Amino acid sequence: MSKKIKINTEPYKGVRDFYPEEMFLQKHLFEKMRQTAESFGYVEYSASVLEPAELYKAKTGEEIVNEQTYTFTDRGGREVTLRPEMTPTLARMVAKKSRELSYPLRLYSIPNLFRYERMQRGRLREHFQFNADIFGVSSEEAEIEIIILAQRLLTSLGAKEKDFEIRINDRAITNALFNKFKLEEEQKYTISKIIDKKDKISKESFKEALEHILEKKTDEFISLLDSNQELIKALGEESPEIKKLTNLIDGLDDAGVRNVRFDQSLVRGFDYYTGFVFEIYDLDPENTRSLFGGGRYDNLLEVFGQEKIPAVGFGAGDVTLLNFLETRKLLPTYISPITIYICRLNKSLASEAGILADTLRKSGINTAIDLSERKLADQIKSADKQKIPFVICLGEDEVKTGRFRIKNLTTGQEKALKAEEIAPFIKGKL
Amino acid sequence: MSKKIKINTEPYKGVRDFYPEEMFLQKHLFEKMRQTAESFGYVEYSASVLEPAELYKAKTGEEIVNEQTYTFTDRGGREVTLRPEMTPTLARMVAKKSRELSYPLRLYSIPNLFRYERMQRGRLREHFQFNADIFGVSSEEAEIEIIILAQRLLTSLGAKEKDFEIRINDRAITNALFNKFKLEEEQKYTISKIIDKKDKISKESFKEALEHILEKKTDEFISLLDSNQELIKALGEESPEIKKLTNLIDGLDDAGVRNVRFDQSLVRGFDYYTGFVFEIYDLDPENTRSLFGGGRYDNLLEVFGQEKIPAVGFGAGDVTLLNFLETRKLLPTYISPITIYICRLNKSLASEAGILADTLRKSGINTAIDLSERKLADQIKSADKQKIPFVICLGEDEVKTGRFRIKNLTTGQEKALKAEEIAPFIKGKL
Repeated sequence: MSKKIKINTEPYKGVRDFYPEEMFLQKHLFEKMRQTAESFGYVEYSASVLEPAELYKAKTGEEIVNEQTYTFTDRGGREVTLRPEMTPTLARMVAKKSRELSYPLRLYSIPNLFRYERMQRGRLREHFQFNADIFGVSSEEAEIEIIILAQRLLTSLGAKEKDFEIRINDRAITNALFNKFKLEEEQKYTISKIIDKKDKISKESFKEALEHILEKKTDEFISLLDSNQELIKALGEESPEIKKLTNLIDGLDDAGVRNVRFDQSLVRGFDYYTGFVFEIYDLDPENTRSLFGGGRYDNLLEVFGQEKIPAVGFGAGDVTLLNFLETRKLLPTYISPITIYICRLNKSLASEAGILADTLRKSGINTAIDLSERKLADQIKSADKQKIPFVICLGEDEVKTGRFRIKNLTTGQEKALKAEEIAPFIKGKL
Repeated sequence: MSKKIKINTEPYKGVRDFYPEEMFLQKHLFEKMRQTAESFGYVEYSASVLEPAELYKAKTGEEIVNEQTYTFTDRGGREVTLRPEMTPTLARMVAKKSRELSYPLRLYSIPNLFRYERMQRGRLREHFQFNADIFGVSSEEAEIEIIILAQRLLTSLGAKEKDFEIRINDRAITNALFNKFKLEEEQKYTISKIIDKKDKISKESFKEALEHILEKKTDEFISLLDSNQELIKALGEESPEIKKLTNLIDGLDDAGVRNVRFDQSLVRGFDYYTGFVFEIYDLDPENTRSLFGGGRYDNLLEVFGQEKIPAVGFGAGDVTLLNFLETRKLLPTYISPITIYICRLNKSLASEAGILADTLRKSGINTAIDLSERKLADQIKSADKQKIPFVICLGEDEVKTGRFRIKNLTTGQEKALKAEEIAPFIKGKL
C-alpha cells in the first residue's frame, strides 16, 4: 500500500478513453446506427465480450485464432477469449434458441471487439463494430436488404453516394474460377488467403505467391481476376453463378442502389461465408479503405450441432467510420447535454439554488449547480468551457423578486423570467 | 476445420446473453440512469474494459487485486486486467487531464465490470454498474447532491422511499472509534476488513475475529458498533466527527431526503475512501441487500503523482437493481421497437412492399417486411410473436387501389389508409 508508486495515466496501448467530447461523437454514431437498424426492423441484442475460446476454434479465419486474439486461462482453468468479432457469438445465441425465435429474424448490436495487432496508424486493439444480421431468408432479398441498410446508415450520417462504393462478389464465382484451374480444396483455401492480401502486398509478391500453386497458369489466373469481362466470358454469362450475381445487381438497381461494382478479387478473411460477400469502400482518393464488410453464411449453426439457418450480415467499425466522417467534415460539433448552469453569488443561497434546480429538472431541463465559492465570472467561465448554453446567476435580489435573469452564453442575450417560465422559454430556444 | 466439433451454445459461466427482451430491460434501466444523471448536470464518459494491471495494485481493497480479478499477460508481455470497478479508471482519466477539465466536474458512466467470483445465487462474473462522480467540491454539498441523485435514480424507476434506506457513515468516525481503542494502523486496517464482513458471518465468528486484536475490550467495541447513541456519547456530540455527520443529515433533511440512517458498522471494502461512505439498502424483508454504494475519496489522484482533487461518487449495479425492480413488479413489459410488419400475399409484390416500407421509414415508422413465402396467417403470427403492434397485408388489390388495411394486433381493429396517411394514424395511436 505504498503511496510512492506513481501510476501512469495512459490507457492500455491500443484502446481509447472516451472523455465527454469523444463520447458525444460515439453517441452520435451509435444513435444513427440504432435508428437506421430499427427503421428496417432490426432489434438490438448484446452479449459479454468474454467468450469460451472454443467458439473461435472452428470456422473462423485461422489467422485470427492463432495470432490475433486475446486468449487466456481463467482462475478456474477455463480458456477464454475477448471476442474478436460478433458473428460467432450471434450464431451461438441463435443456435441456443433457434426453435423459439421468429423468422425472418433481424438482429443488430454494437459490440466492442478486441484484436491483438501490432500498433500502426488507424489500427486499434479495441474497436466498436455495428453488426446487422438477418436469419431465415435464403433468397437474394436478404442480400438486397442488408446492402440497402448499409447504404442508408452511411447516408444517415451525411455521406453522399459518390463518397463510397459497394463491391460485391460471390464465393460461388470464386469457386467456379478455382474449378476452372482444377484446384484441390486445400489449394483453394491457400489461394483465397493470398487473394485476400492482394491490396496489402506488391504485384510481384502477389504473383510469386500464386505461382507456388498455379505455376504456368498464373498469368491466366491473374487476368481473370483483373477483368470482369474476361471472367464473365470464361464462366459464361448464363452460368448459374453469374446469373445469380446479375439478379442481385438488378435487384439493387430496382431499389435505387447503383454505386455497386462486381469485384472478383473480393474474398474476405472469414471462412464461414458460403455465397455472397461484400465490402463498402471509402472512395477518398488519398485513402481508399474498407468501411463495411459482410456476406452470407448459411452453415454457421452446424458447428453447434444445429440445422442450417440461412443468414446474411455485415459489420461496420467505428474507427474507420469516424475517420471517414472526419475527412468529409461530417462530424457534429460538441454540445453539452446540460442546458442550464446555476451560479451562486454566495454559498448561503445553496438551498434556493437547489429548489430552482429541482423545478427546472422536473420540467425536463438538465441543470447543474456550480458548488464552488468562486467569483461569478469564474463560475460563468466554467459553464462556457463546458459548452453549457445557458446560465442563471443567483443572488439575494433574484430570490426576493422571484425573477431570474437567464443568459444565453452564445448570443449574450439575457431575459428575466419567473421560475416556471424558464422551461417553456428554453424549449422554444433549443 | 473439422465440422464434427459440436460447440456449446452457453455463454461463458457467470456472464449473460442479452436477447431482445433482456436488452429491452437493460435499455430501460440505462435510459433512466442517463436521464437522471444528466438532469443533475453529469456528463457521460467511457473507457476500455481492459486496463494495465498496475492500476489496481495501489489503493484498492486487497482482496480484489489478489483473488478476484481477471488478470493476464498479453502477447507483448504486458500485464492487463479486466476492470473490476470504474473508480480507478475514472481517477486515471481525471488525473491525465486534471488541468484542462472544469470543476465542479460531474461525470457518469455505465461500464461493465468483471470479478472472478465463485458462483452463487445473484452473483455474476460480469455486471454493469452505473457510476456518478463529482470532483472539485470539498464541502458536504457534494455528498448531499450525490445522495439525492442516487435517491432520484431509484424513484425514477418507480421505487418508493419506504422500499429502501440510505445508510451513512464517515471514515473519520470509524477512525475516532479506533483511536479510542488505541489501535495501530495495521490493526485498524484488519478490523475494517472484519467489520466489512460483519453481515456475512455469524455473531460468534465476528466476535472471535475481533478478539484476536481487541482481546478483553471486544465487548465494549461491539456495543459501540451496535448502538448509535452509545457511540455518539463516547465520541461526544460536539466532536468534529459527529458534528460533520449531523450537518450532512440536516442538509439531506432540508432537501427532503429523510430515509437516512447513521450506521457506524458501514465501512465499505475499498481503501481509497477518505471520509463519508454510504450504501443504499433494499428493505425487502426477505432479502435485505446493498443496491448502491459510494463515498468520498479525496486522495486518489495522488497515486498518479497529481495534486489531490476532492471527489465523491457512487456505483449502482444492474443485477441487484433489476432484482429489486422485479421483486416490486416495477419492470416494464416488452414492446418491440418495430411498429409495422408488412406481410406479402406473394413474393411478386417484393418491389411494392419495399416502396411502402420506405415511405413509412421516411416518416419515422420502423417497418419490417416478412421476406418469407409463408401463408399470410403465419406471417401475422410472426409479427405477433415479436410483439410488433401493427401489420399490413399486401395483396394485388392494395397495390391497385393504393389503400392499405392496417391492423392493430392488440385490439384487432383494422383501417384502410393511403400510404401517406399511415404515419399520422400510427403516431396518433402510439
